[in-house]
Amino acid sequence: MLRYTAGEDHRLDARLVPYDVRVSIAHAAMLHETGLLSAEDLAAIRGGLEALAKEHAAGKWRIDLADEDIHTALEARLTERIGEAGARLHLGRSRNDQVLAALRLYLRDAVAALADGAREAASAIDSLAEREGDIAIPGYTHLQQAMPSSVLLWADGFAAELRDDAEGLEACSRRVEKNPLGSAAGYGVPLLPIDRESTRKALGFAEVQEPVTAVQLSRGKAEAQVLFEIALLMQDLGRLAADLVLFATSEFGFASLPPSMTTGSSIMPQKRNPDVFELVRGRTATAQACLFEALAVTAKLPSGYHRDLQLLKAPLFRGIDLAGETLAIVAAALPEVRFHAERIRLEPSLQATEEAYRLVLEEGIPFREAYRRVGMRYKVGRD
Amino acid sequence: MLRYTAGEDHRLDARLVPYDVRVSIAHAAMLHETGLLSAEDLAAIRGGLEALAKEHAAGKWRIDLADEDIHTALEARLTERIGEAGARLHLGRSRNDQVLAALRLYLRDAVAALADGAREAASAIDSLAEREGDIAIPGYTHLQQAMPSSVLLWADGFAAELRDDAEGLEACSRRVEKNPLGSAAGYGVPLLPIDRESTRKALGFAEVQEPVTAVQLSRGKAEAQVLFEIALLMQDLGRLAADLVLFATSEFGFASLPPSMTTGSSIMPQKRNPDVFELVRGRTATAQACLFEALAVTAKLPSGYHRDLQLLKAPLFRGIDLAGETLAIVAAALPEVRFHAERIRLEPSLQATEEAYRLVLEEGIPFREAYRRVGMRYKVGRD
Amino acid sequence: MLRYTAGEDHRLDARLVPYDVRVSIAHAAMLHETGLLSAEDLAAIRGGLEALAKEHAAGKWRIDLADEDIHTALEARLTERIGEAGARLHLGRSRNDQVLAALRLYLRDAVAALADGAREAASAIDSLAEREGDIAIPGYTHLQQAMPSSVLLWADGFAAELRDDAEGLEACSRRVEKNPLGSAAGYGVPLLPIDRESTRKALGFAEVQEPVTAVQLSRGKAEAQVLFEIALLMQDLGRLAADLVLFATSEFGFASLPPSMTTGSSIMPQKRNPDVFELVRGRTATAQACLFEALAVTAKLPSGYHRDLQLLKAPLFRGIDLAGETLAIVAAALPEVRFHAERIRLEPSLQATEEAYRLVLEEGIPFREAYRRVGMRYKVGRD
Amino acid sequence: MLRYTAGEDHRLDARLVPYDVRVSIAHAAMLHETGLLSAEDLAAIRGGLEALAKEHAAGKWRIDLADEDIHTALEARLTERIGEAGARLHLGRSRNDQVLAALRLYLRDAVAALADGAREAASAIDSLAEREGDIAIPGYTHLQQAMPSSVLLWADGFAAELRDDAEGLEACSRRVEKNPLGSAAGYGVPLLPIDRESTRKALGFAEVQEPVTAVQLSRGKAEAQVLFEIALLMQDLGRLAADLVLFATSEFGFASLPPSMTTGSSIMPQKRNPDVFELVRGRTATAQACLFEALAVTAKLPSGYHRDLQLLKAPLFRGIDLAGETLAIVAAALPEVRFHAERIRLEPSLQATEEAYRLVLEEGIPFREAYRRVGMRYKVGRD
Repeated sequence: MLRYTAGEDHRLDARLVPYDVRVSIAHAAMLHETGLLSAEDLAAIRGGLEALAKEHAAGKWRIDLADEDIHTALEARLTERIGEAGARLHLGRSRNDQVLAALRLYLRDAVAALADGAREAASAIDSLAEREGDIAIPGYTHLQQAMPSSVLLWADGFAAELRDDAEGLEACSRRVEKNPLGSAAGYGVPLLPIDRESTRKALGFAEVQEPVTAVQLSRGKAEAQVLFEIALLMQDLGRLAADLVLFATSEFGFASLPPSMTTGSSIMPQKRNPDVFELVRGRTATAQACLFEALAVTAKLPSGYHRDLQLLKAPLFRGIDLAGETLAIVAAALPEVRFHAERIRLEPSLQATEEAYRLVLEEGIPFREAYRRVGMRYKVGRD
Repeated sequence: MLRYTAGEDHRLDARLVPYDVRVSIAHAAMLHETGLLSAEDLAAIRGGLEALAKEHAAGKWRIDLADEDIHTALEARLTERIGEAGARLHLGRSRNDQVLAALRLYLRDAVAALADGAREAASAIDSLAEREGDIAIPGYTHLQQAMPSSVLLWADGFAAELRDDAEGLEACSRRVEKNPLGSAAGYGVPLLPIDRESTRKALGFAEVQEPVTAVQLSRGKAEAQVLFEIALLMQDLGRLAADLVLFATSEFGFASLPPSMTTGSSIMPQKRNPDVFELVRGRTATAQACLFEALAVTAKLPSGYHRDLQLLKAPLFRGIDLAGETLAIVAAALPEVRFHAERIRLEPSLQATEEAYRLVLEEGIPFREAYRRVGMRYKVGRD
Repeated sequence: MLRYTAGEDHRLDARLVPYDVRVSIAHAAMLHETGLLSAEDLAAIRGGLEALAKEHAAGKWRIDLADEDIHTALEARLTERIGEAGARLHLGRSRNDQVLAALRLYLRDAVAALADGAREAASAIDSLAEREGDIAIPGYTHLQQAMPSSVLLWADGFAAELRDDAEGLEACSRRVEKNPLGSAAGYGVPLLPIDRESTRKALGFAEVQEPVTAVQLSRGKAEAQVLFEIALLMQDLGRLAADLVLFATSEFGFASLPPSMTTGSSIMPQKRNPDVFELVRGRTATAQACLFEALAVTAKLPSGYHRDLQLLKAPLFRGIDLAGETLAIVAAALPEVRFHAERIRLEPSLQATEEAYRLVLEEGIPFREAYRRVGMRYKVGRD
Repeated sequence: MLRYTAGEDHRLDARLVPYDVRVSIAHAAMLHETGLLSAEDLAAIRGGLEALAKEHAAGKWRIDLADEDIHTALEARLTERIGEAGARLHLGRSRNDQVLAALRLYLRDAVAALADGAREAASAIDSLAEREGDIAIPGYTHLQQAMPSSVLLWADGFAAELRDDAEGLEACSRRVEKNPLGSAAGYGVPLLPIDRESTRKALGFAEVQEPVTAVQLSRGKAEAQVLFEIALLMQDLGRLAADLVLFATSEFGFASLPPSMTTGSSIMPQKRNPDVFELVRGRTATAQACLFEALAVTAKLPSGYHRDLQLLKAPLFRGIDLAGETLAIVAAALPEVRFHAERIRLEPSLQATEEAYRLVLEEGIPFREAYRRVGMRYKVGRD
């Protein structure tokens, strides 16, 4: 059976090991507090799990095909090592709440790292704006020269949006910071005096998720929100890249891209290609696909846990890694982008709106009349 | 040209009329405050626009193919009616900031209405839970009977998630409540002493959106976030419907659906079909497609305004209408859903987990050992 | 109930009236052939349906909210008009096979019209190539000038792809041309001697779809294939538009677009904007969303008919209409596109590859050595 | 630069090695035929490449981060090994046409393997139908018992659709079987007497792709078509799995799934879960996401090659592998699925349609009258 359900998933699970260990220790501590686990057993579990986590981080063991998943693998290795105490650990929980608790702890870190990354990329844009902000460039609408602009204005727009993305990522915490532990398989824990507030506190969740049936029903919502905010972030980065690819054409000629971020051609010896920026642009598609995949996994399923939910991890981790790598690339590329004032041709008609405004101020005529007069000057009009 | 770009769009624009009027009045008032418009002209503009809005609401005029869009149509009709003052209205703004301001005012109302609708649907679930909450039903995992549950627990999970969706919708205000007015075509207003804080206050936006280049760059982000939260809401409703369709099969037999919400068959005289709930389930797909369409419209575009952005309105309005109608359907359907305790067969094995816990408590054995023993009792085990 | 399931759908259904009439007449003729309907009743049914179709086309009646759907509406009006014979029509069929038969007949026509439209757009490109094909333009890779090209080469590429799209659309007939009639609700027709080959022949389907259970299981596959080919077609049109938007910038300056296809700005009196082409580009997103919606509707449903399937019609019709309108726009716009040889700046380095080849031919050196030498000439190299 | 563009991609490229070698040998042979390469050099190139392919297959070398891609890596290693002859290989081609030629050869094999896999899965369904086809089951519409059916009818529907998917996959050859070699960077090969028909024949393509500009413009279309057909295939498999998950509930109870394909629960000792089938169902989402990603990569790009196109490979290979693995799982699972006639409860009302037909035949009354009478018998009617 395992060869049909594991494989790819095992590779993905590796990153959850440290989070699963924290979840299990918090659970064991709670079992001890409520009298369901002795102090000795708790100590053995804590020591065993911490050792396993350290050894896993050091590459001394890894999950293999005989393991159902990382959570089962850890418990099995723990029991092998510390004996009966390990067999007491799973009391009062299910893999369903355990897995989700570990995933949410991971999401907390991942989202914080991405928000930081977005702010660092925004700072890299700030530096570019400081360095070259005074250079005048056309402001475009419909890709036509429209109004006067500057590298400063251009750059500030992107910096503002990346900071907006960072806030958007952080806002995911509303759905992430809910303690699923104690919901077990989705219907709570009968008979045992488990304490959900204890694990909530230990793991730093903002609240206990209630009712227990909401826990599995909410699966995929926090994940999708993170992927949605990643899709917006990747889109903003992709549009920045689209601008730079355009500015670096010989026709626009505004900007040159760092040689270390461009490649040659296998056939045309003269070419320098903006590959890195094209890939940043193209990854917009990948990010959107990750979001779509996550939404499609949970769509239309009856309530309660289904194994389908395991498939959320692949797009989630792919999206998070993609965003992290892309932010690093953008932050590395921007310091070497150069604008070339001498090559930037500003159409005289960029001043047309200002001329119309001057007519309004000086002659007191309505804007529509000033607009008409200036339009005639530029020999174009409305159809 | 207009026959290539208008049409469908004109039909969509109608709902923006009252919002555009509010935006234009706030803009005119600001022009007056800053000395760019006389008190008489402001009064004429305000009176003219309010009359046009009223007449539009009463069906006395509608945008036609000769109009470029609703915003142009309103200004043209206003000038026809009040003369020169109308030709002074567009000073210091562009359709780009005007359209977006109207759209954000509309989104504010639409999102509030959907959040209310989600809470009303949650209340309808609460009523069902009050009425029939005591009935025991199986809790399912993998669609297999798993643990004891109840109509109360089942219903409460959905009510919690609909309230979560309402909060998610309200959180969109972070991106909606930014005043775009004064950014004009995306590069600000030269020469004129316009006051963006004045229009912000008049229209109730939380902040002035800065820098001006961020305004068009942010197009689609608030829209997509609203559609994302709608997708989650529609998914929760769709999963509720999926459960009810299943519970209403003759095999499950738990629940009966309101006759007014089911249909007959054209060939099989005995049939009653849960059509309404199937459509609620199926609309999950429509909602996701609206989100995807909006994201794909803005993907990879260079910065600055592009006409492509107009295409955001169709999926946005479709998604909002879909969610509103579906919430109304669900709220109307739930009061007539009935659970039938006598038909619900609870597998004895639902107690297995509790039995294992009892063994742990009574005999002090590890959970894994108790699990093994109870598993043998039910003659199944792990492979 | 109807107000929850009809509405939008009724508007969509109107286009199916003539197809449903053909289906019903073929079905009635078959009933007569197999002895299940008298010659008089067949004549009454045929006459009644043809009259209803003509009156519907003339706008004399339309489906209203009291009708469940167009199919039920037609049968009800027929029976009202011709009495008992009308009540005999539905023998041996279900709405499930009836609706699908009508839809497939409609798809046959719609796909043929789109394939024709794609070929007409390709011919419009041919004309442009004939008119201005000699003009030299740069061939781009990575948006960088790369190799010599021409308007002819540029145009021919798009014409070839539009013809490929036409073939792709026609290949949908493999899934469209299967007779669903006689599968009834999806499980065949007991007891009655119905003849599926008779209706197949009458309606021109290529084969009878077998087994009966495959009919409903296949729902959405032909529809999705049509939408997939539309997505490719719209993408090719969108990329043509993307090129023209770029060529029409003042920086590239290659091409001017027809004034009747561009618009002015509300604030910048000098502007001419390529709106029509931007909308063609943007509609790529809409087409992809239609495909996605159709795929998501059928995803993961158990076998057999579900009301969810009704939701296939909205994206299907939207996608078909979108493609038809966009092809008409492109065919109308292309004859007025002009390339301006005098504004096209060809980088000397476009000849670099040819120079390297000349070195190989003249000096017999390996290509990699010639590439290196020419690269030095252009002072760039690989990193 | 490479660390920004390689990585993940290198892992993907490995499977293209044997195809790239075939492409290069066909190209070198053509160069020899046209007098651009000596017989000795051709022999050295062929020998060198074949050795490199063999060693790669044996794991003796792999692409590393210093290599730009597999194509560059092969050429570099070849030149290292055979000297100047290797430096002559790239004459008259570009990586753009080279990569695409290799990819299309790979697609040819991949699509054939999937079509075979789909037919094998269909045969596995045939075997099940032979084994248990006589068992009567209800035919469902709207998940309600509707008409009499059988395991045979149920199974045959799926077998027919899988065979339809196999045909759909094979129909992709129309777009796959076009020789891109000789289009070079997308604008052909100046000066050299290259022979595109020679490489077409050597590689077995059906035609030479013309004009050269269509080659890069068509990128993504064959890929998307393959992914589209995979999406349909995966949906059919997912719906088969959805049925089996439902049939295996204790409420339906029709079928039991192979123990080797189910798993236990970590908390509920009595549970057997249909994990494998749930994953097959869930992977519908993954397949659709792969298609969507591929379509989004090429959307709205100007013509000519862009590095974005490289991003097509990840979803393409993921989709192909996913389909291959899932087909293998389904083929392995079906032989152990068992239907249990004794547990299948057939509602008496399944006969209602037949009863109505009998009334029509025996009493000559219209079907609508018979329908009404039988409907009264079952005490339900239309609203």
